Amino acid sequence: VSGLHAFLVNGLPAEPGLAMSRGLHYGDGVFRTLLKHEGRVLDVDLQLRKLLDDAAALQLDTSDSTATLLAAEIVKASAGITTAVIKILLVRGGQGRGYAPQTDRADRLVFVYAAPRYPECHWTEGIDTARSEIAIAAQPALAGIKHLNRLEQVLAYRSAPSGLQEIMLCDDKGQAICGGRSNLFCVANGLLMTPDLARSGVRGVMRDKVLACAAQLNIGVRIEAMPWSRVEQADEVFVTNSLIGIWPVRSIGARCWSAPGPVTTALTQALAHPRLT
Amino acid sequence: VSGLHAFLVNGLPAEPGLAMSRGLHYGDGVFRTLLKHEGRVLDVDLQLRKLLDDAAALQLDTSDSTATLLAAEIVKASAGITTAVIKILLVRGGQGRGYAPQTDRADRLVFVYAAPRYPECHWTEGIDTARSEIAIAAQPALAGIKHLNRLEQVLAYRSAPSGLQEIMLCDDKGQAICGGRSNLFCVANGLLMTPDLARSGVRGVMRDKVLACAAQLNIGVRIEAMPWSRVEQADEVFVTNSLIGIWPVRSIGARCWSAPGPVTTALTQALAHPRLT
Repeated sequence: VSGLHAFLVNGLPAEPGLAMSRGLHYGDGVFRTLLKHEGRVLDVDLQLRKLLDDAAALQLDTSDSTATLLAAEIVKASAGITTAVIKILLVRGGQGRGYAPQTDRADRLVFVYAAPRYPECHWTEGIDTARSEIAIAAQPALAGIKHLNRLEQVLAYRSAPSGLQEIMLCDDKGQAICGGRSNLFCVANGLLMTPDLARSGVRGVMRDKVLACAAQLNIGVRIEAMPWSRVEQADEVFVTNSLIGIWPVRSIGARCWSAPGPVTTALTQALAHPRLT
Repeated sequence: VSGLHAFLVNGLPAEPGLAMSRGLHYGDGVFRTLLKHEGRVLDVDLQLRKLLDDAAALQLDTSDSTATLLAAEIVKASAGITTAVIKILLVRGGQGRGYAPQTDRADRLVFVYAAPRYPECHWTEGIDTARSEIAIAAQPALAGIKHLNRLEQVLAYRSAPSGLQEIMLCDDKGQAICGGRSNLFCVANGLLMTPDLARSGVRGVMRDKVLACAAQLNIGVRIEAMPWSRVEQADEVFVTNSLIGIWPVRSIGARCWSAPGPVTTALTQALAHPRLT
C-alpha cells in the first residue's frame, strides 16, 4: 500500500486491506440494510436507488453499472441462504492519509449476516422505549443520508436503560427525530405524522413505504418539525425499519399506549412485511 | 466470524477481518496522529494520555496496560524508520450487527506512514485558507474528542477551493471552531485566543502545547466562544497540529495578513517543532 510502512493490530503485523479504508478512518461512505426473506430480497430496487442517492449526496462517483453490479453481488453473496440480513456499503476509495479525497470512486462491500429473530409480541403488543439523553446534532449537509458516521446512535444505545427495544432521539431543540435504528411515526386525530429530516436523521426505505401505504389508504400525512410533546400526546406511535417493518410503540418511559392502534394496524396490514420470529 | 455468512469486496470473496470492525460500520473509536522525527516519537506520553481520555469519554474500556502496550507497539511498528507519521486507533471490539456494543474492549491499531513534506514557506510566509461553506454541527456529547466520525472534515475538504493549505470551519451559529485538520488560534492586542470546544471540534495535543508555551512566555490566553468576525479582525492568525506544529495564516479568503506576526513567531520559537520540508 502506497505510503504505508507498517500496520499492527493488537501488537501483531496484519494485512492492511480494509484497515486503510476511508470508511474506517473517516466514515466516508454510505450503507443500506436489506432483508432477504424466504429466498427473496425485499425492496432491492428502492434500496439501491436510495443508496446511490446518498452516495451522490457525498459526491461519491458511482457509475451507471453500480446498481447492476450490486444487485448481482447480493444474489451471489446470499446464494443458498433463504433468510438473511444483507448490508451494503459504498465507501470512498483511495488509501492515502488526509481528509481530502484522492478519488471519488466507491468500493462496494456486501455483507450477509444471519437474520435476527424477535418475539412475536413486538409486533402484536408493541415495544417499550425511552427518550435518549443524547441529543442528535443538526447537520443539514448530512441530514437524511444513511452514512457511516453513527457514533450518536452508538452512544444512545450504550447509555440506554436495559430491557428496551428502541431508544428515541430528539435534536438539540427538542424536536423528535427518530429511533436509534428506526424512523418514527405518530398518529393524532387520524393524521399520520413523521419528522421532517432536513436537519438530522436518516431517510429509511421503510419510511417511504409506510408513507406510500398511507397514501393508498387515504390516510392524511404531515411531514414536519415535530416537538417532542406531540409524540407524547399522540394517539398512536410506531417505528419502522427494513428488518422489522412496523413495530407499534406501547411505552416511551412512563407514557403508555394500548398498542397497536387502529391506524398502525391498518398500515401494518397494507405493508404486509414478514415477521422475523 | 459469528453470524457472518458471506462477504464480498467489489464482487469478490474477501477475508472479513477489519471489515467487521465497528470502526468501519459506525466510526466507533478514537485516534491520534503522532510524528516520529529523526528517530524520536514526539509527545508520545501526552498523545497516549489524550487518546485514553477520549476512549474513556466514549466508554471504551482501556485497561491500565493499554498505554504501555501502545508505546511498545509504536516502537515495534516504526523500528528502523527515522521519520514517519504514526496513527493510532482504539476501536470498540465485537463483530456483531447493531449499534448496541457487545463489549467495551478496544482493539489497538497502529499505522506507520511515510511522513509528508511541505514547502518551507508554509512556516516562514504562512498559508492560504478560506472559510468553508460546511458548518460543523454542535454535539456536546462528542465535542473535543478525536473520534472516527469525520465526514464533516471530508466534505469541507471535498468542497474547498483548490490551492489552499487549510479550510476554516465555523459552527451553525457562526462561531469559529477549527481548521479542517488543525486547531485555530488568533492574536489580538497581544492576547492569544482559541475557540472553546465544548460544542464542536477536537482538542489537539499541539493546541495544549501552544497554550503551555504561551503561559511560559507570559502571553495572556482566552479560551472562549469566538465569533468569526473576531478571526477576521485579529492581528495574527495561525493553525496547529501534531505534524506541522504552527503554520501562520496569511490569508482567509480575501482577508490578508503579513505573516508570521510577532506573537506567532515567539510561540513558534518556543515550541521548537521540527519542519517536515
